[in-house]
Amino acid sequence: MGTTQLETVPEPKYWHLKTVLSEALDTDFSVGEILPNERDLAARFGVARATLRQALEQLELEGRLHRRRGVGTTVAPPRMGVDVSTSQHTWPGTADDVWQSADCTTGTFAAAPAAVGRMFTASVDGELHTVRRTRMTHGQPVAAELLYVPAASVPELPAIEATSGPVRARSVLRELQRLGLDGQDRAVELGSARADDAKELDRLPGAPVLVVTTRYFVGGRTAAVSVATYRADTCRLTFGDSGDLEISHHGPAAHAS
Amino acid sequence: MGTTQLETVPEPKYWHLKTVLSEALDTDFSVGEILPNERDLAARFGVARATLRQALEQLELEGRLHRRRGVGTTVAPPRMGVDVSTSQHTWPGTADDVWQSADCTTGTFAAAPAAVGRMFTASVDGELHTVRRTRMTHGQPVAAELLYVPAASVPELPAIEATSGPVRARSVLRELQRLGLDGQDRAVELGSARADDAKELDRLPGAPVLVVTTRYFVGGRTAAVSVATYRADTCRLTFGDSGDLEISHHGPAAHAS
Repeated sequence: MGTTQLETVPEPKYWHLKTVLSEALDTDFSVGEILPNERDLAARFGVARATLRQALEQLELEGRLHRRRGVGTTVAPPRMGVDVSTSQHTWPGTADDVWQSADCTTGTFAAAPAAVGRMFTASVDGELHTVRRTRMTHGQPVAAELLYVPAASVPELPAIEATSGPVRARSVLRELQRLGLDGQDRAVELGSARADDAKELDRLPGAPVLVVTTRYFVGGRTAAVSVATYRADTCRLTFGDSGDLEISHHGPAAHAS
Repeated sequence: MGTTQLETVPEPKYWHLKTVLSEALDTDFSVGEILPNERDLAARFGVARATLRQALEQLELEGRLHRRRGVGTTVAPPRMGVDVSTSQHTWPGTADDVWQSADCTTGTFAAAPAAVGRMFTASVDGELHTVRRTRMTHGQPVAAELLYVPAASVPELPAIEATSGPVRARSVLRELQRLGLDGQDRAVELGSARADDAKELDRLPGAPVLVVTTRYFVGGRTAAVSVATYRADTCRLTFGDSGDLEISHHGPAAHAS
């Protein structure tokens, strides 16, 4: 019934405009160029401003436009491919880690989001370290991460030093690397930027983001959980080439590079 | 400067409301329950309707609410984990394939989106087969796919049979499976549902979607490209456990199952 109902819903008014605008972006504008203001654009295409605004929102969702307060609407460059494959999400803190540690705080499991707490199968009574990190690409912050590490995962963490700050963050990461990582799994979903992440990513709170959640397994248990918030406007998350296919018996796994 | 500017931007009005509403969803409502109408909700929380609407939009983006024309706003169940790891995106058409072929059309490369055309390194002068498929989970369509296969990739495709429709789609897939797949890469990005995909996914055009683009390599060349549009409201894309880590020399790669 839902389908029947949808069939009778006409295409929204702004839809055709969006297509026309999209073509105009290709032919009449260059990357970084500031678009005329909404009133002029609406007049140029002969549409109401509300319709225009919907089309602009759509193009922003598709990464074709950037809209920034005080700057206006600019033509976006193609999205950056940001590698989120296993090699970029190894045990946090390894030498080739693309993440920069900013801070570390320690609290209870209750203070973490409920969804994060549920991912830990054990030790939810103890303390939880939260390492805040940032991922930079070409000098721009592309992702903000909260890395949750139960105190039970890093029992040999020195107790004498500072209990927060970047030094503490590095200590937690160093302890993590002493563990033998069994594997990890990852999920990607749509989210909206929390106020603190938004600030770090130079976005407004509520902006659409891609949330990558990674569970790190040690000894069959979840030893750490990373919740990384990527800018959805500028990033395309890439998962690299996987040559280890089930059907690789058809021939040698010659990776295309 | 951008950062300084953002620091002075106060949290949007609806932000606190969103948090309060989110907690109310956990405690006062159950999954599938229809929320009171906007006027009643606005009165209950003592906010303007515009503020309420922004908070509801935010919660929809985060997958907490479903809003459907003619039904109203309901409390969403937790998002489904939908496996998009290599094993679910093997050569299209293998026995355990979760995708259902619906149609196949043949045209020129020029008719395909420019971004798709650029992914093929060769043979862009010939014809291009486009197979349309749907992925079902628990009887619900969760993704719509366009699989682009250059005619040059499947030279032995029988010419005598129907040139479109599901039978043709199966023939194209059968020919693909004769090729030795070297590897694949995958990217995930935010998009908005095209009208045809939206209809198939029971959404309105322009709804936010997660677009998974997969390139299939044969002999160092791109032999096929899949553009799969997943519902962003109901799906969490999962990438399975990867035990094949660079640091697996720390210990045996015992996959957590």
